[in-house]
Amino acid sequence: MPARQTLLLTSLILAFSAAQAETAAETAEYGDYIDWRVLGVSHRLEKKYVRAIVGNNTAIHAGREGKTLPWPDGSIIAKLSWKEKVHPRWPAAIVPGEFAGAEAMVKDAKKYAATGGWGFGHWEGKTLVMNDENATATCFACHTTMKDNDYVFTEPAFKK
Amino acid sequence: MPARQTLLLTSLILAFSAAQAETAAETAEYGDYIDWRVLGVSHRLEKKYVRAIVGNNTAIHAGREGKTLPWPDGSIIAKLSWKEKVHPRWPAAIVPGEFAGAEAMVKDAKKYAATGGWGFGHWEGKTLVMNDENATATCFACHTTMKDNDYVFTEPAFKK
Repeated sequence: MPARQTLLLTSLILAFSAAQAETAAETAEYGDYIDWRVLGVSHRLEKKYVRAIVGNNTAIHAGREGKTLPWPDGSIIAKLSWKEKVHPRWPAAIVPGEFAGAEAMVKDAKKYAATGGWGFGHWEGKTLVMNDENATATCFACHTTMKDNDYVFTEPAFKK
Repeated sequence: MPARQTLLLTSLILAFSAAQAETAAETAEYGDYIDWRVLGVSHRLEKKYVRAIVGNNTAIHAGREGKTLPWPDGSIIAKLSWKEKVHPRWPAAIVPGEFAGAEAMVKDAKKYAATGGWGFGHWEGKTLVMNDENATATCFACHTTMKDNDYVFTEPAFKK
C-alpha cells in the first residue's frame, strides 16, 4: 500500500478508536454500590474530592443498629469519590465533578485477620478487585488511626 | 407543699423531661428517604452543611436514564443535611455532624404548575410535610436559577 494511503488508513483507525474509547467512558459500568444506601458523606479538602460513603445491606443494618464494634462479617463499605467542582450557578456549593472511583472495605474477621478483619479493594467497572499487599498496607496504615472504632472513619448516618 | 420541696420536685421534673427529650432525639424517626439511593452530594460552604441528595425509585431511574428534562411526575428528590464537622482524627475531612433535616422536591407537573411543576416540602420525623406558600416562594426563588435544568441543582450520579 502506498505510504499516503497507509497514513490515511492509520488516521482513520486512530479516529475510530478514540470515538470508541469516548463511548466506553460515557457508558462506563458501575458496581452494585450504586444501589447501596447512605452511611455518610465527606469533603476531603486535601484530595479535592467529595464523597458518598454507602454500605451493603449488612453494613447498613449494623450502622443503624449501632452494632459496629466490630462490624459484622459480610459488611461492605464503599467510598465513592468525585473530583470536587464548584457548582456553576451556586459558587458556595462544592459538588461532584468527574467520578474518581469506588473503593471498598470488606469485613471478614478470619480471612483478613492480619488487617483488622478488613479487606481493602476497589471496583474496576462492575468488578470488585481486592488490593495487592502493597496497596492494602497503604490503606491499613491510615485506617489504623481508627483502631478503636474498628478501623472505620465513617460514623453511620441514621443510627437508631 | 413547702417551697423547698416544690422547687426540688420541679427540678426533678425538668431533669426527667430533659432526659426524655434527649432520648427522643437519639431515637428520632426518619422518613423513608433513609432507604433511597444517591443522586449526589454537596458541601454548602455558606451554610456550613454537608449533604447527601437522594431520590425515590422514579427519580433514580430518571437520573440514570438521563430523562430529567423534565423529571417525570412522581419523582421525589430529598436533600439530607448535616452540620459540617471536621473529622476528629482526619482534619482535612469535612464530615457530617448533627443532622440538620431533610427537604423534598416533589414532581407533579399539574399540581405544582405554578412553581415549575415542583412542590417543595420537608420531613418532620417520618412525615413529609409540604411547605406553606411563603416557604415555597423562598425555595422556588433560588431554584429558578436552574430553570433550564428543570429547576434542579443536582446533576444525577451514575448516569448511563
